[in-house]
Amino acid sequence: MSFRAIVFDAYGTLYDVQSVLALTTELCGDKGEAVTQIWRLKQLEYSWLRGLMGDYEDFWSITRSSLNFALKSVGVEPTRSLCERLMNKYLDLDPYPEAHAALSSLTQCKRAILSNGSTHMLSTLVHASGIAALLDAVISVDLARTYKPNPACYALVEQTLDIPKADVLFVSSNGFDVAGAKHFGFKVAWIQRAGPSTSQSDPRLGPSQLFRALRGRAEEFGQQPDYRVGTLTDVASLL
Amino acid sequence: MSFRAIVFDAYGTLYDVQSVLALTTELCGDKGEAVTQIWRLKQLEYSWLRGLMGDYEDFWSITRSSLNFALKSVGVEPTRSLCERLMNKYLDLDPYPEAHAALSSLTQCKRAILSNGSTHMLSTLVHASGIAALLDAVISVDLARTYKPNPACYALVEQTLDIPKADVLFVSSNGFDVAGAKHFGFKVAWIQRAGPSTSQSDPRLGPSQLFRALRGRAEEFGQQPDYRVGTLTDVASLL
Repeated sequence: MSFRAIVFDAYGTLYDVQSVLALTTELCGDKGEAVTQIWRLKQLEYSWLRGLMGDYEDFWSITRSSLNFALKSVGVEPTRSLCERLMNKYLDLDPYPEAHAALSSLTQCKRAILSNGSTHMLSTLVHASGIAALLDAVISVDLARTYKPNPACYALVEQTLDIPKADVLFVSSNGFDVAGAKHFGFKVAWIQRAGPSTSQSDPRLGPSQLFRALRGRAEEFGQQPDYRVGTLTDVASLL
Repeated sequence: MSFRAIVFDAYGTLYDVQSVLALTTELCGDKGEAVTQIWRLKQLEYSWLRGLMGDYEDFWSITRSSLNFALKSVGVEPTRSLCERLMNKYLDLDPYPEAHAALSSLTQCKRAILSNGSTHMLSTLVHASGIAALLDAVISVDLARTYKPNPACYALVEQTLDIPKADVLFVSSNGFDVAGAKHFGFKVAWIQRAGPSTSQSDPRLGPSQLFRALRGRAEEFGQQPDYRVGTLTDVASLL
């Protein structure tokens, strides 16, 4: 296929949301794993709920609310200093080790991010991780004031890059995002990163296993991604 | 307060979604607990995602898709006979033991259900459980072709009962539904049924504990319910 733009999801696709785990463990001890997973699950829930309710607040606000929820849910007091340290990590998430090389290899088309993150969060993140120079655009759903998978978010790509959706390859590791991008009309590559759940031999799932069970599979929306790849560097082979 | 209508959520509020557990355990063995919790979590996710995506399918379809997901996620083959038995339980969920008495005591105003369930699911459910005669209306979001907390769903109450939202008490155990109903403008009573998470002494949460952690608390949307009650029979005291 020939694409004029490759557009990446950010959280979970270029950046490892699980990279907060070292800090949640340092600050919350043996509750760090539960905080990590509940935080991310609630962050996604809140984006969908605020989108559906028509009551937009930006992703920084949602990330803070979901952190408050996660801490309280396991009995940790969400003090200001604790929340500040954890929130700051969201501005400096680890990129996946191959992200830099993968973006560097894609020189024959436009490269962009389309993310739920706020404009400020994304700008900070791409500069902190040294990939800002490898991107032609960083598009925040802030412009549409709703969240993926609302089609208005995916429509921002054409509005920003002036490239029609038929010429766009969208890349995400998030099943709901794959479904939303397919429904919108992009060609979609799913980074199948979480792999199958490890639950099959352990009926008592811990937080990480349950997270993988909930988020690691393709969603049952009757839509399949056009491509399934194991890692970001495989994307170049789709061009 | 004087209300002209009391409107109840169905799943989790009048009917115990956890009552599928005996059957999931009978059919899936020690994976029954994980199937039960993942099924419900995904069912909610799919309602929000389809609502946000603008790609409505009714709740029967969503309940089936989320069951498929849940079974696959723990390595159980979603055979037709297995799925039929589990889906049929959703048409015959156990009402909470106090539901009949609570509805019977509320004779001074209109009584209704507003639920994500499809028209067919709800009709079957209220007849199977013997509460159909205690209700003036059973309102399905089918009419709006989207899901709670989309305000269009809550607006169905006035359209159906011809009672303005200021005169409605909405009752739900689901935190997202409480937030959505408050945002819409109802007075809201939260049935705080799940109670606090039991996780505080157990860093390794199992599926039921994680479900309670995710779903048993008030959501962090900056909106509080007007009333918090422990059980359906307490609702009469609010009138």
